[in-house]
Amino acid sequence: MTRKNLAGTKSELSRRAVLGAGAASALALPIAADAMPRPMPETWDETVDVVVVGSGFAGLAAAYEAQKAGASVVILEKMRTPGGNSLISGGVMSAAGSPAQAAQGIEDSPEQLYQDMLTAGLHLNHPELARIAAERSTETHQWTVDEFGAEWADELSHMGGHAVPRAYKTAVGSGAGVVVPMLETLRDLGIEPRTGALLKHIVRDDDGRVKGVEIREGYRFPDEDSGTTKLIRASRGVVLATGGFGNDIGFRMLQDPRLDETLDSTNQPGATGEALREAMAVGCFLVQPSWVQLGPWTSPDERGFGRAPLFVQLVTAAYGLWVSTETGKRFVDEMADRKTRADAILSQDNKVIAFCDGKGFEVAQQRLGDNLLEALLDSGVVRKFDTLDAMAAAYDSPLDPLAETISAFNASVDVGEDQEMGRYMQADQFRIETPPYYAVRLLPKIHHCMGGLAMDAEARALDVQTSDPIPGLYVAGEAAGGVHGASRLGSCAYVDCLVFGRIAGKNVAAHPVWR
Amino acid sequence: MTRKNLAGTKSELSRRAVLGAGAASALALPIAADAMPRPMPETWDETVDVVVVGSGFAGLAAAYEAQKAGASVVILEKMRTPGGNSLISGGVMSAAGSPAQAAQGIEDSPEQLYQDMLTAGLHLNHPELARIAAERSTETHQWTVDEFGAEWADELSHMGGHAVPRAYKTAVGSGAGVVVPMLETLRDLGIEPRTGALLKHIVRDDDGRVKGVEIREGYRFPDEDSGTTKLIRASRGVVLATGGFGNDIGFRMLQDPRLDETLDSTNQPGATGEALREAMAVGCFLVQPSWVQLGPWTSPDERGFGRAPLFVQLVTAAYGLWVSTETGKRFVDEMADRKTRADAILSQDNKVIAFCDGKGFEVAQQRLGDNLLEALLDSGVVRKFDTLDAMAAAYDSPLDPLAETISAFNASVDVGEDQEMGRYMQADQFRIETPPYYAVRLLPKIHHCMGGLAMDAEARALDVQTSDPIPGLYVAGEAAGGVHGASRLGSCAYVDCLVFGRIAGKNVAAHPVWR
Repeated sequence: MTRKNLAGTKSELSRRAVLGAGAASALALPIAADAMPRPMPETWDETVDVVVVGSGFAGLAAAYEAQKAGASVVILEKMRTPGGNSLISGGVMSAAGSPAQAAQGIEDSPEQLYQDMLTAGLHLNHPELARIAAERSTETHQWTVDEFGAEWADELSHMGGHAVPRAYKTAVGSGAGVVVPMLETLRDLGIEPRTGALLKHIVRDDDGRVKGVEIREGYRFPDEDSGTTKLIRASRGVVLATGGFGNDIGFRMLQDPRLDETLDSTNQPGATGEALREAMAVGCFLVQPSWVQLGPWTSPDERGFGRAPLFVQLVTAAYGLWVSTETGKRFVDEMADRKTRADAILSQDNKVIAFCDGKGFEVAQQRLGDNLLEALLDSGVVRKFDTLDAMAAAYDSPLDPLAETISAFNASVDVGEDQEMGRYMQADQFRIETPPYYAVRLLPKIHHCMGGLAMDAEARALDVQTSDPIPGLYVAGEAAGGVHGASRLGSCAYVDCLVFGRIAGKNVAAHPVWR
Repeated sequence: MTRKNLAGTKSELSRRAVLGAGAASALALPIAADAMPRPMPETWDETVDVVVVGSGFAGLAAAYEAQKAGASVVILEKMRTPGGNSLISGGVMSAAGSPAQAAQGIEDSPEQLYQDMLTAGLHLNHPELARIAAERSTETHQWTVDEFGAEWADELSHMGGHAVPRAYKTAVGSGAGVVVPMLETLRDLGIEPRTGALLKHIVRDDDGRVKGVEIREGYRFPDEDSGTTKLIRASRGVVLATGGFGNDIGFRMLQDPRLDETLDSTNQPGATGEALREAMAVGCFLVQPSWVQLGPWTSPDERGFGRAPLFVQLVTAAYGLWVSTETGKRFVDEMADRKTRADAILSQDNKVIAFCDGKGFEVAQQRLGDNLLEALLDSGVVRKFDTLDAMAAAYDSPLDPLAETISAFNASVDVGEDQEMGRYMQADQFRIETPPYYAVRLLPKIHHCMGGLAMDAEARALDVQTSDPIPGLYVAGEAAGGVHGASRLGSCAYVDCLVFGRIAGKNVAAHPVWR
């Protein structure tokens, strides 16, 4: 439904009234004033063409494209270091129909990636957005090489939910392999993210256009009162590349009440979502916020992503079992998709361990190396038990059902088919019977917010009243919603963030200047 | 995360600037002005304690309780007639632990209803809200009798997803059995919903409080320019009971892109969601909007809820088959829950018919009566075919696969177990082999929006910036989100709307007056 302008009718109220009522009540009830829109400032402390908020993939890509198009650009980053979640991410990026695939004889296409994204997203993806991401994946991967000199390994990974191997991995094995070259290139162009710069307010004028931002300079996360106020006029526009709300417990519990304070996240601490709240307060439209992706392979006994996931996924899921410590029983196919497994763990009151036997631990030693395993054992994240009795006792778990669970699984191994949970059986699947046993507690952690602010194919933020673009406001990356629908595939965040960051940067640089 | 007030710091901008920049730009770019917050009016056309927007169950319950608590109340209804979706709803209301259950020896409890709601809602329900609804269900059902004289049949229905029979049905078989007595009682108290009254703006002051509304009086749906502007001061507060966004195609497609203009809704035409957009524009928080319930039992060959659902559900699902006309194959358990079936039909490119044979039609005659069936046949919603060939030809469907599908089902009937889809088999399940055949096209229709504005247990609307209650603003019914999580159980809308409508009405009447 489109809605027409009614300005100029009787509904046009006296603007003078703002002075009287507004000023008086602000004194009487100042508590709520922070929640209300700001009036236009009389003067600005600084003027640039483009303000980019956030310095992860989306923000850096936007800044680069805007600068290349001739705009003056400022990047604001509230934390002490730039890079956001992108910096600490796993370093994998999908490219459909890539040169590496051609060299390895892998048939693939953007259409296939698009279909994979829709399947994972339960067809809730905004089709146009998902298609753009898929179609530009290979070109954008190449762009990281050509423009920034990002280094990628030759081998492609076959990530869960993808039809074929199509994920490049950075040479250094994390997002730093892209973020650092991008930061260096931008620095050479004279753009350095301003760290400790918190977005406080988006200045949206009565004409509907976003005209600048109010920030806190010298902000020290998470001290809300730190820093000093500064007003930056954005002559062309503002790009919100502020990430998700994974660490905003109140926000996420409204959208999924199961995600309470007992759940950690794999995100950097600054994923606190206040920029999204501010964006909605000035009229942005929130889409699909209840789809929050949890990683099922994380441990509550270490912070953030941690070291457990590789051990949990490659060893306990493939060669061990996941059981409820309350019942001693399995409750899910340990190789199912992320969402199925995370939901299943949550439904077990989070009383779950993943374990393997001594033979499984040998697999771990071969695949993961001794350093990682020593760190896991030293920190107590993984615990070693000489007997099954000892393991059951340590987790206050009933022994007999646990032993029965293992017997039943071993019978499945003997017949080559998981008769209980239908799990995919490894070629070298072996019986679980060789002490000692190694166990790790499981608790899902918030990993990615699929929902976010509504954007169109031009990365323009959409107005909650009209669904039309908000003049002067762009959004990209995890801050935006719709690309991934119900579930983001691994290695598709890089695509999303870089593709729409670039689109936002190009478009904001071409946005008409306001005077 | 709570956020502190920063008023009084350097961030406090000159309010005088509003006059200059605001007035000038409103002239230059009037298009976007409608999207922006209104300044406080100098004068009001009318003053009441409480403004209730919407006249379905939630609005009427709120108005009644507010009036009973001594407040002066106005009910605004944008359509020509009051009652909203409640009036045309199916007339069923859950009451857990009711006298009728006791009389019939049915063991039940609010706790059991709460658990049923959580199971259907995939545990996305806001637990406190779902519990309140469940706990007050029986009391609130009795309240409709005691206060308004609503008449309910003695027999309880066992609705899908409920552990036991617990649904009362109105004597007249629709929501009119409650809405009409409520309207009559309110009329006796001097409160008549003002029809043709469209909410244009919620007036929220700089102090954060909602202080009144700007409406269009004499509005004629859907002409946005009809009517004249009026400002109503709400000394105590405003209750939003404006329903869902089922008929706002742009809104619903942002949250679930599958719900495009090809899908009808079972809602009354006015379920257009502009009040929700306005509420968000003044700082309300949208929760869980991508959960939109579709009815799987509707036909695209009639408008709205129509007559097909009873025939489709009671006859074709129990004694017939649902097949894709493209493949001639079944694609879902025809007795599965609403969401499973609706999603399945959508995944078949909507090319689906439900059919039964002549013996199935006899069941229809017994259960539904001849009048309904004649109307369905006369309107062409249900079509009769003398042979299977004719039916296949009429829907451009391949005959052989269709015949095979029926043979396979008949084999299942012979062994008493649906070997293809695991459907529950009726005690008198019979083979499908008796011409003529009766078919109806299926296309899901939007039925209920589970998501909506964030509210707390006191029915206070929550602010998107702070998650704190917005002073002077309450919300109830389908306009609010969180009670039902991912999926609302049939017969629980009455509970939700009436329980939280009552809470909103009591609380708004006790809200401090502003001066």
